[in-house]
Amino acid sequence: MTWSIYLSGEIHTDWREQIEAGAKAAELNVAFSGPVTHHEASDDCGVAILGPELNKFWHDHKGAQINAIRTRTLIEAADVVVVRFGDKYKQWNAAFDAGYAAALGTPMIILHGPENAHALKEVDAAALAVAETPEQVVAILRYVIDGALPGYTDKRQAAE
Amino acid sequence: MTWSIYLSGEIHTDWREQIEAGAKAAELNVAFSGPVTHHEASDDCGVAILGPELNKFWHDHKGAQINAIRTRTLIEAADVVVVRFGDKYKQWNAAFDAGYAAALGTPMIILHGPENAHALKEVDAAALAVAETPEQVVAILRYVIDGALPGYTDKRQAAE
Amino acid sequence: MTWSIYLSGEIHTDWREQIEAGAKAAELNVAFSGPVTHHEASDDCGVAILGPELNKFWHDHKGAQINAIRTRTLIEAADVVVVRFGDKYKQWNAAFDAGYAAALGTPMIILHGPENAHALKEVDAAALAVAETPEQVVAILRYVIDGALPGYTDKRQAAE
Amino acid sequence: MTWSIYLSGEIHTDWREQIEAGAKAAELNVAFSGPVTHHEASDDCGVAILGPELNKFWHDHKGAQINAIRTRTLIEAADVVVVRFGDKYKQWNAAFDAGYAAALGTPMIILHGPENAHALKEVDAAALAVAETPEQVVAILRYVIDGALPGYTDKRQAAE
Amino acid sequence: MTWSIYLSGEIHTDWREQIEAGAKAAELNVAFSGPVTHHEASDDCGVAILGPELNKFWHDHKGAQINAIRTRTLIEAADVVVVRFGDKYKQWNAAFDAGYAAALGTPMIILHGPENAHALKEVDAAALAVAETPEQVVAILRYVIDGALPGYTDKRQAAE
Amino acid sequence: MTWSIYLSGEIHTDWREQIEAGAKAAELNVAFSGPVTHHEASDDCGVAILGPELNKFWHDHKGAQINAIRTRTLIEAADVVVVRFGDKYKQWNAAFDAGYAAALGTPMIILHGPENAHALKEVDAAALAVAETPEQVVAILRYVIDGALPGYTDKRQAAE
Amino acid sequence: MTWSIYLSGEIHTDWREQIEAGAKAAELNVAFSGPVTHHEASDDCGVAILGPELNKFWHDHKGAQINAIRTRTLIEAADVVVVRFGDKYKQWNAAFDAGYAAALGTPMIILHGPENAHALKEVDAAALAVAETPEQVVAILRYVIDGALPGYTDKRQAAE
Amino acid sequence: MTWSIYLSGEIHTDWREQIEAGAKAAELNVAFSGPVTHHEASDDCGVAILGPELNKFWHDHKGAQINAIRTRTLIEAADVVVVRFGDKYKQWNAAFDAGYAAALGTPMIILHGPENAHALKEVDAAALAVAETPEQVVAILRYVIDGALPGYTDKRQAAE
Repeated sequence: MTWSIYLSGEIHTDWREQIEAGAKAAELNVAFSGPVTHHEASDDCGVAILGPELNKFWHDHKGAQINAIRTRTLIEAADVVVVRFGDKYKQWNAAFDAGYAAALGTPMIILHGPENAHALKEVDAAALAVAETPEQVVAILRYVIDGALPGYTDKRQAAE
Repeated sequence: MTWSIYLSGEIHTDWREQIEAGAKAAELNVAFSGPVTHHEASDDCGVAILGPELNKFWHDHKGAQINAIRTRTLIEAADVVVVRFGDKYKQWNAAFDAGYAAALGTPMIILHGPENAHALKEVDAAALAVAETPEQVVAILRYVIDGALPGYTDKRQAAE
Repeated sequence: MTWSIYLSGEIHTDWREQIEAGAKAAELNVAFSGPVTHHEASDDCGVAILGPELNKFWHDHKGAQINAIRTRTLIEAADVVVVRFGDKYKQWNAAFDAGYAAALGTPMIILHGPENAHALKEVDAAALAVAETPEQVVAILRYVIDGALPGYTDKRQAAE
Repeated sequence: MTWSIYLSGEIHTDWREQIEAGAKAAELNVAFSGPVTHHEASDDCGVAILGPELNKFWHDHKGAQINAIRTRTLIEAADVVVVRFGDKYKQWNAAFDAGYAAALGTPMIILHGPENAHALKEVDAAALAVAETPEQVVAILRYVIDGALPGYTDKRQAAE
Repeated sequence: MTWSIYLSGEIHTDWREQIEAGAKAAELNVAFSGPVTHHEASDDCGVAILGPELNKFWHDHKGAQINAIRTRTLIEAADVVVVRFGDKYKQWNAAFDAGYAAALGTPMIILHGPENAHALKEVDAAALAVAETPEQVVAILRYVIDGALPGYTDKRQAAE
Repeated sequence: MTWSIYLSGEIHTDWREQIEAGAKAAELNVAFSGPVTHHEASDDCGVAILGPELNKFWHDHKGAQINAIRTRTLIEAADVVVVRFGDKYKQWNAAFDAGYAAALGTPMIILHGPENAHALKEVDAAALAVAETPEQVVAILRYVIDGALPGYTDKRQAAE
Repeated sequence: MTWSIYLSGEIHTDWREQIEAGAKAAELNVAFSGPVTHHEASDDCGVAILGPELNKFWHDHKGAQINAIRTRTLIEAADVVVVRFGDKYKQWNAAFDAGYAAALGTPMIILHGPENAHALKEVDAAALAVAETPEQVVAILRYVIDGALPGYTDKRQAAE
Repeated sequence: MTWSIYLSGEIHTDWREQIEAGAKAAELNVAFSGPVTHHEASDDCGVAILGPELNKFWHDHKGAQINAIRTRTLIEAADVVVVRFGDKYKQWNAAFDAGYAAALGTPMIILHGPENAHALKEVDAAALAVAETPEQVVAILRYVIDGALPGYTDKRQAAE
């Protein structure tokens, strides 16, 4: 079984690349997906494809709905959803994705620094793991997919 | 049919009271519900009932999970979910509730000022109405529940 | 058990009133619901409540989405959906409601004249009854709710 | 992931071929499906296979139900449903499919000219995109599947 | 809580009346439902209401579909489904109802004589109880609804 | 897409082989499944594997439940369910499977001779096609999967 | 809204009575349900109603399946499930109920002493609260239903 | 079709290896999955990856939740769930998994010795087979997947 992992949230740092590199190094049988991470494309896709809007609200609306075709399809197809909250912006779309995954009953890993812990307590309470670093996310995926936990399962293997 | 309306989000202004008063004045057949709006009780309910935690993360976690017993039950029972975003705090729990309702397919009305429109575009894109005032929310409820629209349906009734 | 019957489709003739009167005369334990049938209110509710739009598309969109709060909630709550196709307009919203009810697995009765039979064959194929008159719809409801069929069940009762 | 795209609606122009050619040119990882587009076969399949009917209603009914074996299976398997409304016929089956997909929560793209916008407002209101040309549908699919938006993502790639 | 009990199957003996009388005597909080038990009305309801058919197949089809409006609605609303197999007829509709309830996950009680046990083994295997008499069905309902088991719970009550 | 077709019902004639041969000749992209068709194995699998029972009821019960592991899994995985009613036995398991598939919303084709039409009217009423011969079932599958209808689609191809 | 609370697990102490008394004292709008708590009746209901079995396995099986009619119906109807683990017996049925509620997504409160914490860690991990006393369960219900938290919400009310 | 079989429960004997070896010898088209069976890794995965906890309850909680990412994903993906109860420990997690699978409607095989039959009667009552040895589980899988029953189907093949 190939595990489908959706990486939601922050698009301005390289946390996705770190997780993907870590999963590749660990040779995990995973397929990653996520939103379009090109900020301007994500904002403008609606008007760029379907024509301009005078009203900024509808400019945003058309783009957000097209992005939803992608994000909802991929979240519904995911086995695990990882949601990253960073330092900038409101990030309501990240919290929205977390609520969406929670209602679907999809296991979630939330990734954020300790400074956001109180504000994210409702989101964290719906998750099965709360991590602070991409390395921890990779370690969780490695454990849940391959059953490998350094310092434990490698010792048994070594002993055998 | 009594319509169940869940009022999610901001707990520091009286928007819930305004909507409830408006619905009462319009004699709508509705039952409102929402989260516990006493901020300190909401933060501390876990430790107050189940015992203290040294670690703030678990203090928050126990409280957030007890709040989830209430909020998830009432959101799942709701016919319409209204989500209010105000001026303060991160309000990730409001966006989480919106994502939760969206995945359930429950009709949503989002209530916020124009200054948050761009940041909320993904949330708004999942809603069936985006309002700026509690009065507008009441007017929507009055229309969808009773089919009454001032300037339209009252004229017909007057003419009859 | 009170049966919830949603009456979808044509809003320019009195077919709803006929069905409701027939059900009342037969003393059926039913609660009827349906869309807002005031044509102008239905078209303009979005802009009347949430403010005007320069672009007619968004004028329509805001109204249609507010109407959807009502129609989807009531269709999902219905035990039986009756969809009426009349002589005028495109009536794509009626066919849309039929598809919606079909996907939910809700029993449907379609009501239309023989002139539309070929064009409605896919819709009819998803229904459990295809009627031509409101009287037939009432007779079906009377039979399925009370088990009463004139010429049959009344004879047994008369004989007893 | 191969995206499954169901193309519903009009069968008398080459819009499906245009979308399929565009997707092929863009090398999208998609599999298209749709109804049987041979008009007479679609009308007569019931009687041709299962035997003739004297009554035109049952002639149509048998055919429409056999077509439903195909269309419902493929719509339920689709990740995205595109519904095209053309110039001719009542096209109630297209609106029916849109309602069906809406109730399943499947993302929809509606394709029609501006002359039908008002009559299709309820259908459009349930969609995540409303396009006027097959090229726009291809552009949306290219963006949501591959994250590619000409004028945006190609510039970044060019710069790298 | 009022328990909804659907009584499916045989319509030519008074097993329903026996169960209903037993439940009434035991003062159970139940509401019974079932198919229309007037044989001729059940056969002819389609043509009696919607007009005659030359072809017997469609005569039957119209009636069976109208009966399905009643039976599917009531089976889906039931907490417990009791299915009775008697001595006469093919009774495929009874087995159909059992399969329908099984797929819904609704608890089933099957009621039949020992002579049909082998032929009904697949149906019985999907049930939570297999009874031979209406009295046993009443005793099961009394136990599962009120927790009363003669010879057991009455002794405790007597001792208290 | 490979279509999964479950062949339920009669196990004493070669109707399954006929359908499979016809599908192979037509080069349909299908995978067939069905119950274990070895009558004695099907009856005795429970006691043969898990040990004998003195009571015939439990002998049957253990076997029927093991068969259910197979049949429910494959029916739930099926895109189309074909149910065959033959001349012998009660065949309540066939009707049970039809009810099961109906509740799942899976398209059904019922296969039986005209002599059983009246007794099967409730089952037929839940199907999308009622055939009399395996050849007709193959023709339906060929049409719904490949869109091929002899006398129609071959002419267009010939003309092109 | 009346909250339905299912009380699963241990039947040999008066924890249910304590919770019910506490809820009554707090005037909560709740309806409690649970399994039949008469141990011998619960063990013997199958054979007492449906006839004796020579084999103890089937004696147990018939009783356990009849109990399942009650427990599954009430668990599926519950808004909150409380599962109590006591000092005696294996209590696998309590853990089974917890797994059942978890898969349904129903909020759970687990009630047990600290000595069982490690063995129950998987069960606790699926719950929204882990309590040690019936008083804590009452306090949680009071908070989630009425929003009342002594030392918090009463102070505000006192101040007003 | 490759059957997905989840092997839940006891982790201190080699019953999984026996079943897997038997399935391999029988050349069954199956994919097995199960929990992480390294006891210490399973207990400590939470703190090993996400950092230590002073409180043993949260140490366990973090680990149990990470294990749940694996177990719930694989149970939901399984066609058949086998649950083994052994001689040691409380094994509430095994019973929890059984309840979880039961609520999903997934066919279950329970594997335990006769000494636990009474205590497991509620769990067994939700299963489609109760086995005592891994060999029996393999025989069931072989029968339900390949339709092969030694002493029955091999004779027919031999005769042909």
